[in-house]
Amino acid sequence: MVTHFSRFQHLLLQPRLLSSHQSRALQHPLIRTLTVIRSVMGSSSSSSSSKLLFRQLFEKESSTFTYLLADVSNPVKPALLIDPVDKTVDRDLKLINELGLKLVYAMNTHVHADHVTGTGLLKTKVPGVKSVISKASGSKADMFLEPGDRVSIGDIYLEVRATPGHTAGCVTYVTGEEADQPQPRMAFTGDAVLIRGCGRTDFQGGSSDQLYESVHSQASFHANLIFTLPKDTLIYPAHDYKGYEVSTVGEEMQHNPRLTKDKETFKSIMSNLNLAYPKMIDVAVPANMVCGLQDLPPQANL
Amino acid sequence: MVTHFSRFQHLLLQPRLLSSHQSRALQHPLIRTLTVIRSVMGSSSSSSSSKLLFRQLFEKESSTFTYLLADVSNPVKPALLIDPVDKTVDRDLKLINELGLKLVYAMNTHVHADHVTGTGLLKTKVPGVKSVISKASGSKADMFLEPGDRVSIGDIYLEVRATPGHTAGCVTYVTGEEADQPQPRMAFTGDAVLIRGCGRTDFQGGSSDQLYESVHSQASFHANLIFTLPKDTLIYPAHDYKGYEVSTVGEEMQHNPRLTKDKETFKSIMSNLNLAYPKMIDVAVPANMVCGLQDLPPQANL
Repeated sequence: MVTHFSRFQHLLLQPRLLSSHQSRALQHPLIRTLTVIRSVMGSSSSSSSSKLLFRQLFEKESSTFTYLLADVSNPVKPALLIDPVDKTVDRDLKLINELGLKLVYAMNTHVHADHVTGTGLLKTKVPGVKSVISKASGSKADMFLEPGDRVSIGDIYLEVRATPGHTAGCVTYVTGEEADQPQPRMAFTGDAVLIRGCGRTDFQGGSSDQLYESVHSQASFHANLIFTLPKDTLIYPAHDYKGYEVSTVGEEMQHNPRLTKDKETFKSIMSNLNLAYPKMIDVAVPANMVCGLQDLPPQANL
Repeated sequence: MVTHFSRFQHLLLQPRLLSSHQSRALQHPLIRTLTVIRSVMGSSSSSSSSKLLFRQLFEKESSTFTYLLADVSNPVKPALLIDPVDKTVDRDLKLINELGLKLVYAMNTHVHADHVTGTGLLKTKVPGVKSVISKASGSKADMFLEPGDRVSIGDIYLEVRATPGHTAGCVTYVTGEEADQPQPRMAFTGDAVLIRGCGRTDFQGGSSDQLYESVHSQASFHANLIFTLPKDTLIYPAHDYKGYEVSTVGEEMQHNPRLTKDKETFKSIMSNLNLAYPKMIDVAVPANMVCGLQDLPPQANL
């Protein structure tokens, strides 16, 4: 655990202190209803997933997904956003306010090249929110993560896995494996694994060799990355361009047209994509290297 | 029972004549999946929601959601699509094939004015698929539904609730309330209830008065419609224009800016929207009145 988390110890509860009955009793009936974890590939959900409020949100112009997670079994209802977009910050905050959540972390999976992150704006609109990104990103932020770190909101936590290749600092956030964590597990893969695709590897320290290893490697625990997660793990990517919203590890292992290939074939595919220069990159990357608008003064809360 | 069901009489089980055990034993795996029966079926005792495979899919141009539901506990993996779009039929069929599902029904919540339904194309590409819509829609289809009807895939069923107002023939499909059905329940509301909004009511037999009643009424069982469902019922609309994907009955009861108002205020809001004439309506409605391309000859399966 990096030292930055010590400030937030009050949000880190010990899940075993509450019985399932007690946990339920604490939940407001309206909020308790918002779990959307069941669903995919016939995987069952554990009783404890009822504490998770989860929403996937979409920004149409850059086809970016923002994820909202909160522990609604906790009286504070602590919440985090993964990959917020500057243009949809007001929408996200409206929803957070309506649901009675307390936004604690605004996290990024990496320094995006196709949109400006919302973390800077969020910090100005909700004083106290901490911007979070990997140390390897080289970006400015309030908190820096390294592989193996955990980010907790109430009883729910995300573990950090380094998945470089799209950029050198890409990480995947994965929910915990214990029975009291949401089941099936959820992996927020950024641009490392997209549904039936993957992020490009031709800029920002990208490397197709490294991306392949990030997805397939079983070399060590922290390199035991995406395709070695349980097959029913839900994959929530940073983008989708075809109208998909979620996949599973098992599905991508079987049907991803790039990542199912051997490494040399994958590298050849990636080096022959002939993609256009990203139209937003010259605006987005400099802004995102300082988490959007890192040092703007606080504004009134929405 | 409308006469169109007579073709499917061999698929209609008499639930009260058989014990749950006998019923299961007698049901051929394929036949069991295809039941379209009127309501008041006794609840069975199987336990899990893990049998449901669920995917929400998005068509960006018309901001339309298509829903895929399948019972993956059944060897046949019978599936249905709600509100498929012609432009994304190939994507939907690719996913269905990859997941090993058998598409049985292509259903619509209503005759859409903003896009051409995919049901006609699906029928040409997957022989045997039945197009399904409400009788009140006046549209052509293979099967017509009335309030209280059920559409089953394997052990999972949707019940039909009439929710007119956006169009005269709008229905909402709601998963069953029994413990062996997905929990929380799911309501596919079409354009009746959108997330923080609702469908327009100024064409195609629309009526703001009727829409208000469809959402709020508690007059009788089948008019016990959307806001009288359990508050944790998940609302999956036909469209979203702001990047939301799901809401709940409780959330819309509290935060829907139109439907939380009294009826007269609601009617006033709806009559002052000053919306543009729908750009697709002159193409979409005539096509959708025959479920897309109802009578095209079959093509090879994808």
